[in-house]
Amino acid sequence: MFELLYWLDLFGVIVFALSGALMAGRYQLDPFGVVVLAAVTAIGGGTIRDVILGTQVFWVANPIYLYVILATALLTIIFIRRPKRIPKRFLLIADAFGLALFAVLGTQKALGLGATTSVAIVMGTITGVAGGMIRDVLCNVIPMILRQEIYALAAMLGGCLFVIFNWLGLSENVATIYAIIGALALRLAAIYWQVSLPAFQIVDKEK
Amino acid sequence: MFELLYWLDLFGVIVFALSGALMAGRYQLDPFGVVVLAAVTAIGGGTIRDVILGTQVFWVANPIYLYVILATALLTIIFIRRPKRIPKRFLLIADAFGLALFAVLGTQKALGLGATTSVAIVMGTITGVAGGMIRDVLCNVIPMILRQEIYALAAMLGGCLFVIFNWLGLSENVATIYAIIGALALRLAAIYWQVSLPAFQIVDKEK
Amino acid sequence: MFELLYWLDLFGVIVFALSGALMAGRYQLDPFGVVVLAAVTAIGGGTIRDVILGTQVFWVANPIYLYVILATALLTIIFIRRPKRIPKRFLLIADAFGLALFAVLGTQKALGLGATTSVAIVMGTITGVAGGMIRDVLCNVIPMILRQEIYALAAMLGGCLFVIFNWLGLSENVATIYAIIGALALRLAAIYWQVSLPAFQIVDKEK
Repeated sequence: MFELLYWLDLFGVIVFALSGALMAGRYQLDPFGVVVLAAVTAIGGGTIRDVILGTQVFWVANPIYLYVILATALLTIIFIRRPKRIPKRFLLIADAFGLALFAVLGTQKALGLGATTSVAIVMGTITGVAGGMIRDVLCNVIPMILRQEIYALAAMLGGCLFVIFNWLGLSENVATIYAIIGALALRLAAIYWQVSLPAFQIVDKEK
Repeated sequence: MFELLYWLDLFGVIVFALSGALMAGRYQLDPFGVVVLAAVTAIGGGTIRDVILGTQVFWVANPIYLYVILATALLTIIFIRRPKRIPKRFLLIADAFGLALFAVLGTQKALGLGATTSVAIVMGTITGVAGGMIRDVLCNVIPMILRQEIYALAAMLGGCLFVIFNWLGLSENVATIYAIIGALALRLAAIYWQVSLPAFQIVDKEK
Repeated sequence: MFELLYWLDLFGVIVFALSGALMAGRYQLDPFGVVVLAAVTAIGGGTIRDVILGTQVFWVANPIYLYVILATALLTIIFIRRPKRIPKRFLLIADAFGLALFAVLGTQKALGLGATTSVAIVMGTITGVAGGMIRDVLCNVIPMILRQEIYALAAMLGGCLFVIFNWLGLSENVATIYAIIGALALRLAAIYWQVSLPAFQIVDKEK
């Protein structure tokens, strides 16, 4: 049981590290800069979650995550010779997997640490979106969450679905996987069909 | 006594959430993005303060803040049909109220937790300015604190006034309110008359 | 022994505060904005390190750092009448000293708190680069770590050298100083000769 969550967590770290490394490929980053950007993206959200919850930061407790990130970044550099050739969508999809995984796993960890439902869902959202936010801010790109495609909603949905499935008495594993699938499906659909909720305001010339 | 501080704290959260939601109105954010930006602005400063002080984060201890932010963001979306029509100054004023309230309340909380005077004033400044800083950085806007109108000074003044009024033996409530009024008056005056301290350097073409 | 590390730490705070103040001179910041930017640059990295390690934040434990930053910022304002006249390289060199010092001292502190080698080196890197990152992000400048000159590598090298020198049985003082010299030399050489590692990707028009 713990097993599954552990592998899902590692997978989330890998896809976020990949998204960070791909973003790095769009800048003149040397390999070490790539590693740093991959690491910030992959552990940023979980680090903020653990610090706010006052629990030991996950990668300090288990450095395996650092090696996984290092390996992911280096493999990206070695195998992807022309990151610019990789369609932008590929980065978006990697980010979507990380978003869905971390939003659900973050909610679960917070609940496990005794957080209330609302706090747990917020923690899940932070875990899912913060790493990508930091990646985008460092690269001086407007964070995805501030763009139109359903993003924050997908993260919140993941947390809410997990809570609901729990209430419905599903096993933790099943609840986790269904919640991840739900959040991922929503986000991927939004990317694929460029679906988006009605914006609070139509942006006009003035900025 | 605690009562008053509690309501002032909630009021600070509301005005900062409002400033975040109004800022969101200047971008193509969907309702969930608006909620996220409002939340980051409203709890960012206090979260950093609590994490640095090593105390439990206030909104984890009391999730009511999250519901207040959610309500504020939704009401902003519902009632403000054309955020762009809202004069920029409105956002500045909401931000000024949050700045003054959080700078003083942050200083007070730090002192209550046994921080030294200098640390407490820095904590108050962080509480007052960090949320708005994160909001502006996420929106790729130069943070207000890096613009000319007296901003950092207003925050520091709030903390210093509270400390001084305490030394003068005023009741905590009175000291709090006077300090808030002092910081708020300074900041509002700076906004109204575009007052500003002599800059360290006149910006020239080169950037 | 502690003595030396203490002074090196203070020196690192001073040079980073100086780099923050010089950066502030490139914007229309009032003296208080300069102090804030200097402070964020000087204590940002160490604060994140301490928070992640779950130890008391260094400047909360010992406020002397705050006074040192205040003094550095004010002296910069007083003595540097035309920050724009100061060659950009001066800011880079101050930043390089802070980077080397904090990367090594951060690694050492993490090891002293029982962190594993890999975690300690990551902590050192965070301590060395985070403050400057925040400074650059706040000023809406692409962080140095995302530019070409060897930067992340210099920070990691500092931490690795310290660990290696320790293994070789050098006294902590000697290991610290040699590691700092090594990281500093690499970074300064990179600045001086604009050396840089082969980038992961050549940036083309598209951005």
